[in-house]
Amino acid sequence: MDPFLEMALDEARTGLGEAGIPIGSVLVHRGEVIGRGHNRRVQQGSAILHAEMDALENAGRQPAQVYRECTLYTTLSPCAMCSGAIVLYGIARVVIGENESFLGEEAWLRGHGIQVDVVQDPGCRELMRAFIETHPELWHEDIGH
Amino acid sequence: MDPFLEMALDEARTGLGEAGIPIGSVLVHRGEVIGRGHNRRVQQGSAILHAEMDALENAGRQPAQVYRECTLYTTLSPCAMCSGAIVLYGIARVVIGENESFLGEEAWLRGHGIQVDVVQDPGCRELMRAFIETHPELWHEDIGH
Repeated sequence: MDPFLEMALDEARTGLGEAGIPIGSVLVHRGEVIGRGHNRRVQQGSAILHAEMDALENAGRQPAQVYRECTLYTTLSPCAMCSGAIVLYGIARVVIGENESFLGEEAWLRGHGIQVDVVQDPGCRELMRAFIETHPELWHEDIGH
Repeated sequence: MDPFLEMALDEARTGLGEAGIPIGSVLVHRGEVIGRGHNRRVQQGSAILHAEMDALENAGRQPAQVYRECTLYTTLSPCAMCSGAIVLYGIARVVIGENESFLGEEAWLRGHGIQVDVVQDPGCRELMRAFIETHPELWHEDIGH
């Protein structure tokens, strides 16, 4: 497994250990992790800290050029909000652990010239599948349903 | 001027008074303000707290049905990230102070069935115009340029 996706999965597991929604992300610039995070809806009562947003926030303010040389690894297909953040900053590439539990705005990302690679990793999928089965109300809240 | 847009403009002015980027937003549910905020890039070193995101975050976790009955007032046309958050939560209507300083993803919002009304308010426009003229580097950073 790609070590950066493994880190994102570790973030997701950390979130689960905090009774949170198990989605994790890592922002990588030229082979170096500059931000990592996980969904904080439960932990911080947050409506905006999806994993991708948390990783971007933890990376801090970066020059535009840095984002354009970044790859964002995330355990689950990014929703409209997170995809919008990726488009805003022009992140070059997104590696997605799986998109079977949830399919976000991948087509929209590709339409903006962003490289989108979907791994369909069984570990990412199983973590999310089990969570959705046991906490459907939290999951639906997180995607605005 | 619409009192809720006036509140959003007050938020923008508060941001300017904090040496921040002067954009403000107010989230209104059935005539009641449930969240308000302004851009926090400078104040909190934030890459994600645009005004709309700050207002959504300050509203806290809300049921899906609440968002669908909300109007988001914002002094400036929402970027891809903020538009994505609006799409994620299915906010019914967005009232935009002006879109001459910056045109965000209004067409994409309308394509998702969201009502988008642009006021072209001179107060919103002048505040943004003056800021962009005096702080072009901050403004470009905020929109990923």
